[in-house]
Amino acid sequence: MRNVIDVVDLTKKEIYDLLDTALDIIKKPKKYSNKCKGKKLATLFYEPSTRTRLSFESAMLELGGSVIGFSDPDSSSASKGESVADTSKVISCYADIIAMRSYQEGAPLVASLNASIPVINAGDGGHCHPTQTLTDLLTIYREKGTLDNLTIGFCGDLKYGRTVHSLIGALSRYENINIVLISPEELKLPDYVKQDVLDKCNMRYKETADLEKSLDKLDVLYMTRIQQERFTDKSEYERLKDVYVLTAEKMQSAKSDMIVLHPLPRVNEISVKVDSDRRACYFKQVANGKFVRMALILKLLKDKNFIERRLGDDVIFNKHVCKNPRCITQTEQELDQAVKLVDKEKEIYRCVYCDKQV
Amino acid sequence: MRNVIDVVDLTKKEIYDLLDTALDIIKKPKKYSNKCKGKKLATLFYEPSTRTRLSFESAMLELGGSVIGFSDPDSSSASKGESVADTSKVISCYADIIAMRSYQEGAPLVASLNASIPVINAGDGGHCHPTQTLTDLLTIYREKGTLDNLTIGFCGDLKYGRTVHSLIGALSRYENINIVLISPEELKLPDYVKQDVLDKCNMRYKETADLEKSLDKLDVLYMTRIQQERFTDKSEYERLKDVYVLTAEKMQSAKSDMIVLHPLPRVNEISVKVDSDRRACYFKQVANGKFVRMALILKLLKDKNFIERRLGDDVIFNKHVCKNPRCITQTEQELDQAVKLVDKEKEIYRCVYCDKQV
Amino acid sequence: MRNVIDVVDLTKKEIYDLLDTALDIIKKPKKYSNKCKGKKLATLFYEPSTRTRLSFESAMLELGGSVIGFSDPDSSSASKGESVADTSKVISCYADIIAMRSYQEGAPLVASLNASIPVINAGDGGHCHPTQTLTDLLTIYREKGTLDNLTIGFCGDLKYGRTVHSLIGALSRYENINIVLISPEELKLPDYVKQDVLDKCNMRYKETADLEKSLDKLDVLYMTRIQQERFTDKSEYERLKDVYVLTAEKMQSAKSDMIVLHPLPRVNEISVKVDSDRRACYFKQVANGKFVRMALILKLLKDKNFIERRLGDDVIFNKHVCKNPRCITQTEQELDQAVKLVDKEKEIYRCVYCDKQV
Repeated sequence: MRNVIDVVDLTKKEIYDLLDTALDIIKKPKKYSNKCKGKKLATLFYEPSTRTRLSFESAMLELGGSVIGFSDPDSSSASKGESVADTSKVISCYADIIAMRSYQEGAPLVASLNASIPVINAGDGGHCHPTQTLTDLLTIYREKGTLDNLTIGFCGDLKYGRTVHSLIGALSRYENINIVLISPEELKLPDYVKQDVLDKCNMRYKETADLEKSLDKLDVLYMTRIQQERFTDKSEYERLKDVYVLTAEKMQSAKSDMIVLHPLPRVNEISVKVDSDRRACYFKQVANGKFVRMALILKLLKDKNFIERRLGDDVIFNKHVCKNPRCITQTEQELDQAVKLVDKEKEIYRCVYCDKQV
Repeated sequence: MRNVIDVVDLTKKEIYDLLDTALDIIKKPKKYSNKCKGKKLATLFYEPSTRTRLSFESAMLELGGSVIGFSDPDSSSASKGESVADTSKVISCYADIIAMRSYQEGAPLVASLNASIPVINAGDGGHCHPTQTLTDLLTIYREKGTLDNLTIGFCGDLKYGRTVHSLIGALSRYENINIVLISPEELKLPDYVKQDVLDKCNMRYKETADLEKSLDKLDVLYMTRIQQERFTDKSEYERLKDVYVLTAEKMQSAKSDMIVLHPLPRVNEISVKVDSDRRACYFKQVANGKFVRMALILKLLKDKNFIERRLGDDVIFNKHVCKNPRCITQTEQELDQAVKLVDKEKEIYRCVYCDKQV
Repeated sequence: MRNVIDVVDLTKKEIYDLLDTALDIIKKPKKYSNKCKGKKLATLFYEPSTRTRLSFESAMLELGGSVIGFSDPDSSSASKGESVADTSKVISCYADIIAMRSYQEGAPLVASLNASIPVINAGDGGHCHPTQTLTDLLTIYREKGTLDNLTIGFCGDLKYGRTVHSLIGALSRYENINIVLISPEELKLPDYVKQDVLDKCNMRYKETADLEKSLDKLDVLYMTRIQQERFTDKSEYERLKDVYVLTAEKMQSAKSDMIVLHPLPRVNEISVKVDSDRRACYFKQVANGKFVRMALILKLLKDKNFIERRLGDDVIFNKHVCKNPRCITQTEQELDQAVKLVDKEKEIYRCVYCDKQV
């Protein structure tokens, strides 16, 4: 293992390894408190994200290492027009591992192709956020004791919710998973996720607009925020917003061992009253986020099976142009366009950097 | 001791304990250089304040600990609308102690009610700034050898000067203190401070507009800045501004052992020429600020008499609404309004968070 | 050695000492990994510069020390109008050494005159950037084995390029140096650099607009960016910009052991294709920057020959006024104007802070 750009880059075994390492760290923190002494993590946050940044930083500090970096783009060389590739090469002289957050999709992949040190994607636009997914998996694993045989409800904004798409993708590898998709019509899971993941992996799922009626079947409820901006019709938002708020009252109809997750920050989609319910696991999730990042940093720094990342042989260069305005190919100096044929029949090509169809 | 939100939360004994610990740190720094090894301070600065932040950070580093945090609100989750309560719970997963600075009055109290780790108020709007007051007390204690039997002049903006109100409050517990209030008419000490503190505690004080004539009686001169913005009449500002500038010339009429304090940053209210006067103690004050914060962090992390902070039984919930636009109750999600009856006779209620009358 | 404000403050011997220390650090990093344990570097960046800041921070961490500071002016006390002198005195209470970056020319000198700890200039406007020059020297020394007998080409913006002026100044002390100045007419090296450095030191140099024809004679090629903003005539910029881009093709006519340097960030003045050429040394330069800063921090903290910085006896106070709008004398509270007579014959006085003629 060398870089973590997308959670699907990790094998099922690698994920179990990471989760088990995280559990061992939780059990014996002292054993790990000097493992990364003398090592430096660079947190390159082109987009602010306090939670994710501080999670990485506290993870590195608890391994005995130290941290350098920047927390917003204005104070970075990026504002002087430096390419992601160059920044990655420069940071490779200063640090031992990079955690990169970017509004530009594919930026961490470009970084990993240029850095001489491991790169972790700490979120690239609407594309990937693998450490959040690993956090979610660890929380489910820790609380339910398994990643198989679970009925998992996703509630809220399933259309734009990157964390939802990513967790569904990760869950597709486990046995006997039932997915319940709970959202208003306007924020349903996109068809391409249904086709590429749910259908392809023969996962059972059902769609509903009703949170209350779904609750009693769930082992896990994954809440997300419904943002007003997502609605074209504001009155529709007003009508719906309370329906998807999780309250202490609604929690009464849930199983006694159901767990509630949320990627945070929450605004008002979960009532503060629910916090004291022992099924509320979203703050435990925060702690798990730190532990899984500790495991990840450790693996990437200590694993001798060092594989330099390269684009595969099946990549087609400079034949198709990615039109995604948030893709790194739009701005990066002298970066080749690169696509992969992902569906031969339908002739679907996807950009290697942002995974958008071209 | 568990949280420090307002300096009046500390008993007289606790303050002497802190000052004595600070003095011991000054004497034997090596003894303390590893006391907080493996511990993390989170500096949550919703409002920039370099001096206070770096004072806390250097304090933690000199105790052998490390630091995470943010230094302005834009790069924090607050910009995504996360409540102070949630941020406090999240940070409790990452760090061992919090120093919080906020423009919102009462925010550190809300944090302390939700965090599972100690919280230090590093300044909340115009409300409290207890570590500045502890810094002032340590400087007086160190330079004068006592906190009793002193004549202390406050000069400049006594109306809006939070540090002035807070130090007067703290001094009210000591024996035989004389206060001299030196300010232009427009910036006199507010009546409520006079009534609630000076009168209540039977402290001797006099008010004057004349700095020069007051100087020869003072043991301590506490300078503050007069900001142009405070004056409605600009010509009045022009007429007055030089009167309250401390110059080398004015210093001639002061006692040979008077000390000059200033919370800094200074702009021009003390001439640079005064810096070389050995009575000028405002840069010593900066060093003392670090030492008293070291003492405070140490006490909060090591003291086993762990008392979780709760609002007292005399708090009245949701009957009165705080109208202070800077109060945390204005924005915090699902936060109960909470007041206390502070004066039975006059029926004065104060908001528990910001201490403003409701 | 006590402060490093301008590279010319260092003697030739001091520079060789620094370079040799840097080489020893490169050879035996473990020997140095605890040399600054318990010491704190303050990075005071009034102007953002990620590369320089992270270089200093990683340098300090690799010496076992720690770091505090700020990375942009808005989050600093400077925004409250605090003088550089006061900030320096304050930071002296928190840290053991300062690296200061400022848009104001002369600010680090003012800091060094007020701080009680060593100050390193990390770049002050268009004035000095001594650690960049030391980085350049270390790279040449490491790659070519000598600082004498070299033909060194400077290409691009030689008019505004601070790093160019500074490196030429530093090279003037070595034996048998040939300078080739390659630039468009509009961006030629200023006359005062030619007169004050090249002519005064009898350095051989020639000026040309032709990069390609110059390449085959060079031992070192120092590239800089040509910024569109520098041209009054935009069509002139369009005509010229490609001429000064270094491509793999152009590299063919260069010597097989020529080295290419660039202070970075690069935008497009060097093609990414050149990066894989083993003569491309600009990323090695980045690593060297860290090592030379380690050497510098070490020297400044450990050298017992502590000389407090003072302005020389030949300084004339308050007779001449510096008109440079970027000079620190424009804003700093109660700072005396100070000039030196640098040319008796022509009666040329220069400001002590920004070195501009008054």
